[in-house]
Amino acid sequence: MLDNRLLRTLRCRNDHRPGVLGHLASAIGDAGANIGDIRTVWVGPEHIVRDVDIVIEDAEGLERVVAALAALENAELIEIIDDIHEFHLDGKLEIRATHPVETIADLRRVYTPGVAEVVKTIEADPDESYHFTMRGKSVAIVTNGTRVLGLGNVGPVASLPVMEGKAALLNQFVGISALPIILKSREPDAIVRTVEEFADGFGAIQLEDIESPACFEVEERLVASLDMPVLHDDQHGTAVAALAAAEKAMSRAGLDLETARVGVVGLGAAGTAISRMVQDVTHHAVLGYDPNPQARDRLRDSGGDLARDLEQLMGEADLVIAVSGQAGSIDTGLIRPGQGVLALTNPTPEILPEAALAAGAAFAADGRSVNNLLGFPGILRAAVDCRASAITRSMYVAAARTIASLAEDNELVPSPLRPDVHRGVARAVAAAAAEAGVARVRVPSDYQQEEHFHTLRA
Amino acid sequence: MLDNRLLRTLRCRNDHRPGVLGHLASAIGDAGANIGDIRTVWVGPEHIVRDVDIVIEDAEGLERVVAALAALENAELIEIIDDIHEFHLDGKLEIRATHPVETIADLRRVYTPGVAEVVKTIEADPDESYHFTMRGKSVAIVTNGTRVLGLGNVGPVASLPVMEGKAALLNQFVGISALPIILKSREPDAIVRTVEEFADGFGAIQLEDIESPACFEVEERLVASLDMPVLHDDQHGTAVAALAAAEKAMSRAGLDLETARVGVVGLGAAGTAISRMVQDVTHHAVLGYDPNPQARDRLRDSGGDLARDLEQLMGEADLVIAVSGQAGSIDTGLIRPGQGVLALTNPTPEILPEAALAAGAAFAADGRSVNNLLGFPGILRAAVDCRASAITRSMYVAAARTIASLAEDNELVPSPLRPDVHRGVARAVAAAAAEAGVARVRVPSDYQQEEHFHTLRA
Repeated sequence: MLDNRLLRTLRCRNDHRPGVLGHLASAIGDAGANIGDIRTVWVGPEHIVRDVDIVIEDAEGLERVVAALAALENAELIEIIDDIHEFHLDGKLEIRATHPVETIADLRRVYTPGVAEVVKTIEADPDESYHFTMRGKSVAIVTNGTRVLGLGNVGPVASLPVMEGKAALLNQFVGISALPIILKSREPDAIVRTVEEFADGFGAIQLEDIESPACFEVEERLVASLDMPVLHDDQHGTAVAALAAAEKAMSRAGLDLETARVGVVGLGAAGTAISRMVQDVTHHAVLGYDPNPQARDRLRDSGGDLARDLEQLMGEADLVIAVSGQAGSIDTGLIRPGQGVLALTNPTPEILPEAALAAGAAFAADGRSVNNLLGFPGILRAAVDCRASAITRSMYVAAARTIASLAEDNELVPSPLRPDVHRGVARAVAAAAAEAGVARVRVPSDYQQEEHFHTLRA
Repeated sequence: MLDNRLLRTLRCRNDHRPGVLGHLASAIGDAGANIGDIRTVWVGPEHIVRDVDIVIEDAEGLERVVAALAALENAELIEIIDDIHEFHLDGKLEIRATHPVETIADLRRVYTPGVAEVVKTIEADPDESYHFTMRGKSVAIVTNGTRVLGLGNVGPVASLPVMEGKAALLNQFVGISALPIILKSREPDAIVRTVEEFADGFGAIQLEDIESPACFEVEERLVASLDMPVLHDDQHGTAVAALAAAEKAMSRAGLDLETARVGVVGLGAAGTAISRMVQDVTHHAVLGYDPNPQARDRLRDSGGDLARDLEQLMGEADLVIAVSGQAGSIDTGLIRPGQGVLALTNPTPEILPEAALAAGAAFAADGRSVNNLLGFPGILRAAVDCRASAITRSMYVAAARTIASLAEDNELVPSPLRPDVHRGVARAVAAAAAEAGVARVRVPSDYQQEEHFHTLRA
């Protein structure tokens, strides 16, 4: 989930003696900024220059930081560096030839006449396209930019940097070649028709940031018509991460997810998918709340119970999973002692974990770490590797359980930067695909080994 | 244009003494194979093992080569290596992240929260997408595989290796990120609608290997509806190469293209585009022949004259450009002494150059070197770099003249493997775009410099 905060680098000069960096960091933190990396730029006999990366709420927050630094005696702010745009210059992806074309011999292989034999092989058996083209490792990331999380309906073109970011992560985490395909239309008919036209060029389709309820119709129709993996990340990617966090949190608190009454606040794309996945795992109804009638109908159709209001849900649920998009919408007075609370709306949750704990919650967490980046890379890699005809619920659940199992004791979910997480997810998902009978090829028995995830040339 | 011949590597062992390789090469050549690279695999005191790359007409031709080698005394064939399929394994492209994502700081830049600022920049001004996404250097190569040259209607999936090959060449020659987008439909309506949906994610659209006459309607409608470069390579790429060869051949023979009667045999995609481009340059009608009534209508609509048969055309034309797709269709008896003949159908031309020359032609050439690879890379690179709203006829003509000017004295067109050809074409096309008023940004004054063509990270 995207947030709207600003990323800046503060170039600061301070006296070269112990303790000054502490003052500087405290001043920045007290003014409301989160500090990221700190890099030393220059060390002189009397002064040190450092670049301090910060994340700050907004422009006013940045002014508060500037004022706080101006008040310091032994340090000063030299420059505020905004290198985000520079970083994104020319985009974050490139499509490269894997073989050089420098001689006639190269040209004869890459192009004509060599390519004709490969064309005939695929013409005789289209499945050979998974071997002899990039299709076997490629994913189309499809969006119309109508619901970029945290930013809303920015439209297709403005959503491109987000999609490139997702594609870059897929490439880095699991070695997939992913390309954003941005669509003009908001109508499900046009989206479905367009994806059906070009889908055969890819190994899988990842739907992203399409508004609700269009996203449901688009996903359902494409799952039905395409004989390949189709994943709507905002539903299933988020649900996988949420289920992983819920399993880990409940077991840490000595509670049992299977018998708990689970309440889901907000029944959009994420909430609907979370409800369905929890019901699949626990075999009993979740209790859901959303003021939107269509959202309520979706939950009822999936076998869930509807709360008439937030108060009823908070009063009955043993575990509350909130994905409402409404910052601060759960009042501390609604917390029932002993209840577990996962308030996952980003960047500001429905209730701050500290407030929920103070009101008696058994455990509480927000959505900063519960990231769909944990799920979709490994799921998609496994799905294309075993050439799955579909992604089953059991594959999503396998991903969630693997993520939960890899979390350290002091965390709900592991870091998405851990390569073993994605390899572990991929292995579990491939096994689940084989068991569900949707896998068309077997992955190797040593599939989790690192080398299988670096098949693309360096 | 693709041909159907086989590419094989012959691993041969021969006695280690002077002259034996000559015998070996002669035996292979006399059996009808063209020899490509020869690589030494092993050198012993008595024997040498070499890999000899050959191109051969068909399986029967290969058997003749095997028999010829078996008859040699001092050399033997150890193995026939068919590594073409291995070469194409996993495809010929990969989509890579240009920045590593290994730390939280990386994630904050590539993804959230950093990306949100870039999204807002593009939301405020969609043209910024050319700077802050890969769009400014990306091309979609769109096909439905209905007319893969030399292979016919192989369908979209089987055409993928060809499209990947074109994309690989674009990447290698001019640093563009190109991706094949293969479409299911044969109907122009569906193709146009689909491309219009996703076009905004790319800097230009390259149409490839779409059957005639659908290709004309598709190109015309997309040129009209999209405010970006749209190039149908089979028309304009081929016409650019043919015009370059025609200009060079005529000037070498001391003839004047401007005043010559130009005959075009075959009025499909290539022939139609060649006719229009020649008429643009010479300001008078070409004489065309094609039995297909639709093809004849297209020429008449463009102001061309129609020959009632091939005999009339051959009798009247000073320069014959044949792109009929019909091997051997021009009889030597039709050649008029002093006439120029470019018989461009691949792999076997309408008339062999030697036969045409023997019958009195002033000059004659076939299509082996007259390759659309000469044109489309530089044209597309210039078109996206100057963000052209369209590709004008003057831009194509500028490309053709540059190609002709770079040919050595003994060749009609230069090798497409020469990087200066693509840079020269790009510079000429960018200048023509500026002059035509379709360029929205100026390319740098030192645009032809090599460094501008290696902007993608190594």
